[in-house]
Amino acid sequence: MAEGGRLVHQGLDRGWEPDCVAITAEGLTRSHIRDLAERLTATDARIIEVPERILTQITGKDNPGAIAAAFQQRRRQLDDLASAQIGRWLALYEIRDPGNLGTILRTADCAAISGVVLLGKCCDPYSIEAVRASMGAVFDVPFATADFDTFNAWRTANSAKLVAATVNGSLRHDRVDYGKRVAIIMGNEQSGLPEDVEKSCDQLTLIPMRPGSDSLNLAQAAALMTYEAWRSQGYPGA
Amino acid sequence: MAEGGRLVHQGLDRGWEPDCVAITAEGLTRSHIRDLAERLTATDARIIEVPERILTQITGKDNPGAIAAAFQQRRRQLDDLASAQIGRWLALYEIRDPGNLGTILRTADCAAISGVVLLGKCCDPYSIEAVRASMGAVFDVPFATADFDTFNAWRTANSAKLVAATVNGSLRHDRVDYGKRVAIIMGNEQSGLPEDVEKSCDQLTLIPMRPGSDSLNLAQAAALMTYEAWRSQGYPGA
Repeated sequence: MAEGGRLVHQGLDRGWEPDCVAITAEGLTRSHIRDLAERLTATDARIIEVPERILTQITGKDNPGAIAAAFQQRRRQLDDLASAQIGRWLALYEIRDPGNLGTILRTADCAAISGVVLLGKCCDPYSIEAVRASMGAVFDVPFATADFDTFNAWRTANSAKLVAATVNGSLRHDRVDYGKRVAIIMGNEQSGLPEDVEKSCDQLTLIPMRPGSDSLNLAQAAALMTYEAWRSQGYPGA
Repeated sequence: MAEGGRLVHQGLDRGWEPDCVAITAEGLTRSHIRDLAERLTATDARIIEVPERILTQITGKDNPGAIAAAFQQRRRQLDDLASAQIGRWLALYEIRDPGNLGTILRTADCAAISGVVLLGKCCDPYSIEAVRASMGAVFDVPFATADFDTFNAWRTANSAKLVAATVNGSLRHDRVDYGKRVAIIMGNEQSGLPEDVEKSCDQLTLIPMRPGSDSLNLAQAAALMTYEAWRSQGYPGA
């Protein structure tokens, strides 16, 4: 569900198909919402005019704006992820916090990540919290779900190194040879990566931290890892 | 307010003074909470045994744990911030989202930041959302509030460069000469930095982004900037 005119436009621009759209009568008095409504009538979407209190109920927000649109979800497979000569993928193992996931999608979009892979039981990338935190990146960053073994076979077949950011890492994250094709893997917020997953990695790496500090938030660590890999390749696509 | 035994211990370990502590009867049946209660009786804190539903009301959480402690807030001035030979400060101009602020404090702690400066009308670092997101870093990272002119005079007197991360930056963030003493400044989530603040900076820098992507979340950008400055100095204190 995209909330607000900007995000609904973005979904349409990227070719996502709207299923059902709720617009307030007040919104239709404004030209940019009317233009958007016109654009939506050219799609197969069901368009409903609603009082603001219904939009408040749909979005759970006191200040729901003038429009919300439910788009058809896409379920991609690994082979749907882009695979250029130079690539950086981000694999998240059993990530549970939808706010973290949305923030990571937003960052992955900025860092020109080739695709995000959700491994095992992850939270829903289409949940309202994840979509909100992604600030539209959910429409732009390709993501797929997979189990670890399938993913590991796929990345091997695609000649991508597997680099884990983990407390068990020894090499500093800015000293890693990421190569031209790399998948970064990061673990669950509480428990990190399982031992057998770490054993399948080409490199375990560690982000420096002040001794005595607690830990980085997963999304913060993901930003540092994706940007470091991108930097090592010379920021292709920037 | 520190929620849960680990954070209450951390506050006490760092010398913060508890004002008032609420503990559930059920919690007192567990030895580690009983030990903590004993430690607290040696302080001036008022200790109250409460039913779980009161702790639920205090914390606003369905699952409030066994203990919550209100500590006395500290109001630091700029001169209270550490000023070693090598230093990195992070100044936040009118940051508004307490979750962002807490996450930034957590990251600043990991990145061994010398101090965080809250400029202008920022959100409250002691709000429940900021403290929660900081995961205890609120007890560890020194922070002060100031207006920009006072801060700018202070950093100049302390021989710290002022480097802004801004969309108006031209030099890539990993090409900046941060020097031995640097204050990184970042702007409000929506409006960034005012023009006169940018004019006072020694360097405006830009984090690379995929063209067409929206923007990095402020906390994500803060992680990239603080870690890049730390890296350029060779990770002192790691």
